[in-house]
Amino acid sequence: MSRIAPLSGFPEWLPPQRIIEQRVLDHLRATFELYGFAPLETRAVEPLDQLLRKGETSKEVYLLRRLQEADEGERGRREDQLGLHFDLTVPFARYVLENAGKLQFPFRRYQIQKVWRGERPQEGRFREFTQADIDVVDRGELPFHYEVELPLVIGDALRGLPLPPVRILTNNRKLCQGFYRGIGIGDVEAALRAVDKLDKIGPAGVAEELMRTAGATEAQAKACLALAEISAEDASFVDAVAALGVSDPLLDEGLAELVRVVEAAREHSPGLVVADLRIARGLDYYTGTVYEGVMQGYEKAGSVCSGGRYDNLASAGDDRYPGVGISIGVSRMLGLLFGASALTVSRSVPTCVLVALPDEESRPASDQIAAALRRRGIPTEVSPSADKYGKQIRFAQRRGIPYVWFPGAEGAADEVKDIRSGDQVTADRTVWTPPDEDLHPTVGAAP
Amino acid sequence: MSRIAPLSGFPEWLPPQRIIEQRVLDHLRATFELYGFAPLETRAVEPLDQLLRKGETSKEVYLLRRLQEADEGERGRREDQLGLHFDLTVPFARYVLENAGKLQFPFRRYQIQKVWRGERPQEGRFREFTQADIDVVDRGELPFHYEVELPLVIGDALRGLPLPPVRILTNNRKLCQGFYRGIGIGDVEAALRAVDKLDKIGPAGVAEELMRTAGATEAQAKACLALAEISAEDASFVDAVAALGVSDPLLDEGLAELVRVVEAAREHSPGLVVADLRIARGLDYYTGTVYEGVMQGYEKAGSVCSGGRYDNLASAGDDRYPGVGISIGVSRMLGLLFGASALTVSRSVPTCVLVALPDEESRPASDQIAAALRRRGIPTEVSPSADKYGKQIRFAQRRGIPYVWFPGAEGAADEVKDIRSGDQVTADRTVWTPPDEDLHPTVGAAP
Repeated sequence: MSRIAPLSGFPEWLPPQRIIEQRVLDHLRATFELYGFAPLETRAVEPLDQLLRKGETSKEVYLLRRLQEADEGERGRREDQLGLHFDLTVPFARYVLENAGKLQFPFRRYQIQKVWRGERPQEGRFREFTQADIDVVDRGELPFHYEVELPLVIGDALRGLPLPPVRILTNNRKLCQGFYRGIGIGDVEAALRAVDKLDKIGPAGVAEELMRTAGATEAQAKACLALAEISAEDASFVDAVAALGVSDPLLDEGLAELVRVVEAAREHSPGLVVADLRIARGLDYYTGTVYEGVMQGYEKAGSVCSGGRYDNLASAGDDRYPGVGISIGVSRMLGLLFGASALTVSRSVPTCVLVALPDEESRPASDQIAAALRRRGIPTEVSPSADKYGKQIRFAQRRGIPYVWFPGAEGAADEVKDIRSGDQVTADRTVWTPPDEDLHPTVGAAP
Repeated sequence: MSRIAPLSGFPEWLPPQRIIEQRVLDHLRATFELYGFAPLETRAVEPLDQLLRKGETSKEVYLLRRLQEADEGERGRREDQLGLHFDLTVPFARYVLENAGKLQFPFRRYQIQKVWRGERPQEGRFREFTQADIDVVDRGELPFHYEVELPLVIGDALRGLPLPPVRILTNNRKLCQGFYRGIGIGDVEAALRAVDKLDKIGPAGVAEELMRTAGATEAQAKACLALAEISAEDASFVDAVAALGVSDPLLDEGLAELVRVVEAAREHSPGLVVADLRIARGLDYYTGTVYEGVMQGYEKAGSVCSGGRYDNLASAGDDRYPGVGISIGVSRMLGLLFGASALTVSRSVPTCVLVALPDEESRPASDQIAAALRRRGIPTEVSPSADKYGKQIRFAQRRGIPYVWFPGAEGAADEVKDIRSGDQVTADRTVWTPPDEDLHPTVGAAP
């Protein structure tokens, strides 16, 4: 007996929610293209050894096996095993290496796709979700200015939608590494990983972990926490860091870079980017600016976009491909907003006009009216059956279709009714046009 | 050591091909929405028992296993196993049953997603591909007129693109079943499956199989083949069938339905739909009209879209959900056309204008020009570096970017150069607009 039930971690939207999601994705894509990012899609699978290169999330992979193979009890060699990608960065790095000879560098691309995490079902976390990524990758050297540009693109992409404002908390790996080195901590990577847990385990927990895993003294741990407390919407964080009295050339380089990111963003989109020296990002491969975006009112839910500068993700022989990227967690964002009933849409179908049907014999005539409206870009359906007009109007009402079109009988003019106001006027199918705001479903924020 | 190599069966496009694919998908989607189909996406996975309901393709499934589970040697119960969907019909039927209480019927939806087939790699067939499906599903009864409408939607969706014309070969299961019954064949399903192999094994092979699997006599097999030879672009096939002298009420019903499909399509899109009584479609669940579309010039490659009427795919207790759907094999279609270099695109990036950089200090000024152009919907990039202008122009040329914008020095006016013609004119960033055909990449048919 087949079970018909939702699968935990695999969210599915109803049509109105999907209309909202598409509106969001269309806006992201349009913004990315305005900035010249080229579209890209990679296959859903990677060889397992590619997926395991990245560290941290390596255990959350779904492996694939052909059913027949499974039935026969075969077991492939590990290097032949395929797994579903768990992010879009690893496949992108592989794609760049594979196609380096056919791409133009610096290469700007966006990629909007599903990713999968082989989480235990009971954890209630998404196991399938949509991400929207932008990256710029160059061959050899990547100019710093892309680290300034990327959060501005993300800011533009998330503006102009009925979403809560997003603040991108920004830090710089060089700043932290230089500071830790400047105060004499031996294992800088371990220190980064410890500070990354600040939200989860609190200052005392981080201090304990800094001492235990990074070999920090109590004073060093205190200095790390003091650094992590600094945040500012302008360059004033430089003075706050200086007040801690640590000197290191890498620290200075990181400070200067972070100033450029924060100042450019203040000019372009005030309030978008905040220097927040607590942001560490657990992943080892970041080497410069790191980003973590939170939605206003949903800060507790954690980041909805994240990324950073990486120098060592892709290399082949002597060719290095440094890059910088930010990923928007679209499903995560919409999951939060749908959960809070924060978004509305004016109807559950694309249809703007329902053409009524006087009787079943008139279907070809009603089809022709629909065709005439569609030729002018007006989404139109014909009534499924020649019920009484009242019932046909209710068909439109239940879906939020704003207009019902009544074919004129025996030479009389057609009429169109706005079923919200009840207004009914004569109309010419070759001329009549709905108001712009009625042509497509309208997405808004719930009052 | 990580392998960097293409995976057979998992096609990936380069950016220019992806731009073409997106243009195709956008046009399909716009057409589907013009006809009032609501957007839908289902999760990529289904419980294995759901996937195995459908028959035929049941062995070509990819099963999922969490890496950790695999490492621990766990083995889930079969009913808990998840597999990747191999089409969009099975997940849609499941979605309809799961959400029946929240959907409005008749429910029209389109769905554009990846599907996966766990084929052996050496067969060289796609193991991941994109499909674009439309279906109309109703509760209880589904009016016949949707079987007339669906091929017209597909015809519109595939017109207006630089693709070869598609012909939709159409038949009706009732017609075949009535005919087979009328001539006294016992196992009608087996007869359908045998005739479905006509392209693969030829008339003699089908005759042999009809006799072997469907219990047909030689005369019955000959009659089946005579029926399969009939095709027409108008209702004339009715006379050709009548000439075979078989009488059956189901045959008559099927003939009448097929006439309606063919005649309506002749009116709407001459040449789009052809009655072809050879089309059987192997899948058991079709019960009325069946469709199989081929691209002109690529007929040998087989069908690029297919579908039909089904009555028994989804039911729960006393509620039945009959439907009709057609699926376009987008990857299959584009794979054929890319393989033949049949499609072109004017550039490999969305960018319409490259803003040049006199020197690195001027980057903020060039960024402001880009922002002004983007505000008016013109896709714009700023030069990655302040190389000599000749090198910056070559950056644009290599990507097919048509315009380079030169910021005016010290109060002088900006200038914009069409790098194809070499024409350079003064320009105001708040007013200048490229010709419509240059705003976005242009997709065309190769000469």
